[in-house]
Amino acid sequence: MTDRTSALLTDLYQLTMLQAYFDQGMNDIAVFEFFVRKMPEQRNFFVAAGLEQVVDFLENLAFTDEEIDWLAGCGRFHQRFVDSLATMRFTGSVQAMPEGTIFFPDEPILRVIAPIPQAQLAETRIINLLQFQTMVASKAVRMRLVAPQKLLVDFGLRRAHGAEAGLLSARASYIVGFDGTATVLAGMRWNIPLYGTMAHSFIQAHERETEAFEHFARSHPHASTLLIDTYDTEAAARNLIPLSRKLAREGVSIQGVRLDSGDLAEHGRRVRRILDAGGLNDARIFASSNLDEYKLKQLVDAGAPIDGFGVGTRMNTSADAPYLDCAYKLQEYAGLARRKRSEGKATWPGRKQVYRSHDANGQICGDILTTEDDIQPGMPLLVPVMEAGRRLAVVRPLESIREHALAGLSKLPEELRELAHAPPYSVIVSEKLRALAAAVDQRTDSALA
Amino acid sequence: MTDRTSALLTDLYQLTMLQAYFDQGMNDIAVFEFFVRKMPEQRNFFVAAGLEQVVDFLENLAFTDEEIDWLAGCGRFHQRFVDSLATMRFTGSVQAMPEGTIFFPDEPILRVIAPIPQAQLAETRIINLLQFQTMVASKAVRMRLVAPQKLLVDFGLRRAHGAEAGLLSARASYIVGFDGTATVLAGMRWNIPLYGTMAHSFIQAHERETEAFEHFARSHPHASTLLIDTYDTEAAARNLIPLSRKLAREGVSIQGVRLDSGDLAEHGRRVRRILDAGGLNDARIFASSNLDEYKLKQLVDAGAPIDGFGVGTRMNTSADAPYLDCAYKLQEYAGLARRKRSEGKATWPGRKQVYRSHDANGQICGDILTTEDDIQPGMPLLVPVMEAGRRLAVVRPLESIREHALAGLSKLPEELRELAHAPPYSVIVSEKLRALAAAVDQRTDSALA
Repeated sequence: MTDRTSALLTDLYQLTMLQAYFDQGMNDIAVFEFFVRKMPEQRNFFVAAGLEQVVDFLENLAFTDEEIDWLAGCGRFHQRFVDSLATMRFTGSVQAMPEGTIFFPDEPILRVIAPIPQAQLAETRIINLLQFQTMVASKAVRMRLVAPQKLLVDFGLRRAHGAEAGLLSARASYIVGFDGTATVLAGMRWNIPLYGTMAHSFIQAHERETEAFEHFARSHPHASTLLIDTYDTEAAARNLIPLSRKLAREGVSIQGVRLDSGDLAEHGRRVRRILDAGGLNDARIFASSNLDEYKLKQLVDAGAPIDGFGVGTRMNTSADAPYLDCAYKLQEYAGLARRKRSEGKATWPGRKQVYRSHDANGQICGDILTTEDDIQPGMPLLVPVMEAGRRLAVVRPLESIREHALAGLSKLPEELRELAHAPPYSVIVSEKLRALAAAVDQRTDSALA
Repeated sequence: MTDRTSALLTDLYQLTMLQAYFDQGMNDIAVFEFFVRKMPEQRNFFVAAGLEQVVDFLENLAFTDEEIDWLAGCGRFHQRFVDSLATMRFTGSVQAMPEGTIFFPDEPILRVIAPIPQAQLAETRIINLLQFQTMVASKAVRMRLVAPQKLLVDFGLRRAHGAEAGLLSARASYIVGFDGTATVLAGMRWNIPLYGTMAHSFIQAHERETEAFEHFARSHPHASTLLIDTYDTEAAARNLIPLSRKLAREGVSIQGVRLDSGDLAEHGRRVRRILDAGGLNDARIFASSNLDEYKLKQLVDAGAPIDGFGVGTRMNTSADAPYLDCAYKLQEYAGLARRKRSEGKATWPGRKQVYRSHDANGQICGDILTTEDDIQPGMPLLVPVMEAGRRLAVVRPLESIREHALAGLSKLPEELRELAHAPPYSVIVSEKLRALAAAVDQRTDSALA
């Protein structure tokens, strides 16, 4: 569903390592897992997103002739290795938490099992895809939680970090309950509902603001949201009343207005009074202007008569936490569990599973992180997604991902739903996993000794 | 140089406004300017970047048949309007500051002059391209300034916000003096020098760390930087000495080592001593691990014996200021200057030029923001870039952009080069521009009255 990604959209070290694997004939099965190390201070949980794009990427991973020629000529690689890349495809399997699943630090949300060159080469793009959408979903969900009754629309394409970030943030925010996006391409690709109003330039291009309103309403007789803050918000609202009566006689209605500056709660109240007094009781008030979950909460708590919000930059740049401390780490190679032990960056080794329990009210109440073969109480969260390089039928359509995410949110304990930092959710590391880590360390120590 | 951007990678409101312009026959020349409203607290200047991609975008702006069909079927637009889009191309002109130019708030860095539908449609993607690369260049340059003698390499693809962000941040950081990037595709596209080391997974895939080092060095006999922090940094460095002697006898040399965790200055000192004592005086020490300009400055000030740095996430997400408060605003339509007057968001109207003066030492010492036709002392910064929809020869190759940026940096006053917030650089708004704004307001007021 996304454009083909060049196989060269990767770090140079993936290719230099691949040549070393090639020279040594190292082609055994590697197991890598993706997880987030730490919860940002401003978050209480994560929502997994981006899997669909990872599956697309792995299914289509291949070097073009042009890329092979460039690699052969760049002076870093020998010909036999480059030739081996020309026919390389992803033939492995993937297990993952379905998109929309709530998760916590150290819990793997994706596992890749493949010959080591394939699993290694894919690292950079897998992280690039999973961290971004997960980050946006985990930010956008906070807006949904504080404004459950409001229309929420992604307005952020323009200040997203490039084209793909804009497009995928429409998807990630929709998964966690946004109502739609302004990004037209996201509507075409994923059938995400589209929303839009008008820009100040449209008003400015007319000599009179009311004329601009009239032109726009006539062109969109049943779908016009008029931007009223270009010069004087309340004056514009008052001028709408006679215009709406004139247009109504011709079958043209005004759906709503947008506020984009100043004290939104106060403007909202005044404009609501003006619209109601003028008979425009059905016209909705929509607001935008550097919104985030904190401002939304203020407006909702203040009872501001605003029906919907356009949320952009701060949502899709995840402005207060613009990256996740995440990693894709080798946990097993050639049948032996492995782990990195660097200071402050040690990982849990082996293939892992997460079991989640629910309390009597149906709320989630604790996870167990354990080895894949260790059955624990609760529901296992990682499920098969790809086998032999092909997706399984369980990769879900977007609407079903969204339902899964919203169902998960309804089971979230109250304290995790708050904007404030909550005590961490319980994730217990099983005895079996601790024992495996100790055994791996012992093996490594004796190899180093 | 970038992939084609879909014309639907835009906000819905651009298309709804275009239908209204179409219905009213509004097709006069519009003038839009892109500028940044405010300096983030953590920046003292901006570096313009992204123009090349804007020019590519405008030259190739067109709807595909598939996009036209989708628009015709989506239920929002009438057929005559959709038909008009099928043949729409950008036929306007563009003036801009060359990429790599230092600039300040309210100064336009790009002006688009075109029939209003074209200039309007392009808004979303123009902002998307200019804000991102400008933001990254304006962050990365701070790293270059605090570590002028160090090798600096972009390592950030994996945690960049999507594919395009990763790719373009390699370009933006190179413009302001980074030495290269790990992103292979950026090397292929723009000939940006590539750097890479190895990942922990490569070490972990071997039973013995030293064996991993040996395999890698043999595969890259004159280009190996070995990652030594997987288990015990100093132990790994000590084990390198006998290995390096053995390999040297076979003509294989070790270029350097990478530190990726712990106290980098302290590890750097210890490892330097071990390498020097073992005869590896030429081996360079390279470091990475959540670096930003503040950590670089600490390491440089502490005299840490580290030769180069891999800088990733915090650079290319511009983590402490992950977006710019920027806008693309209508400043003239049908020959009349315009401006928006929304609370806290008013803009300077008309076509503008920026004149920059230099002091006796050649340092920049003040800008004048004025109307395009008002000649002022100093150098005008906006130059023609496109005419009649085609680029002019002045769009520069990347190396020349980089030279322009570095020349500009050498003229930057000392206080602006500091990481700390400096008093704002002087940007004077001319009398003529103030008079134009007053005239525009008077005209607008009488139209509203």
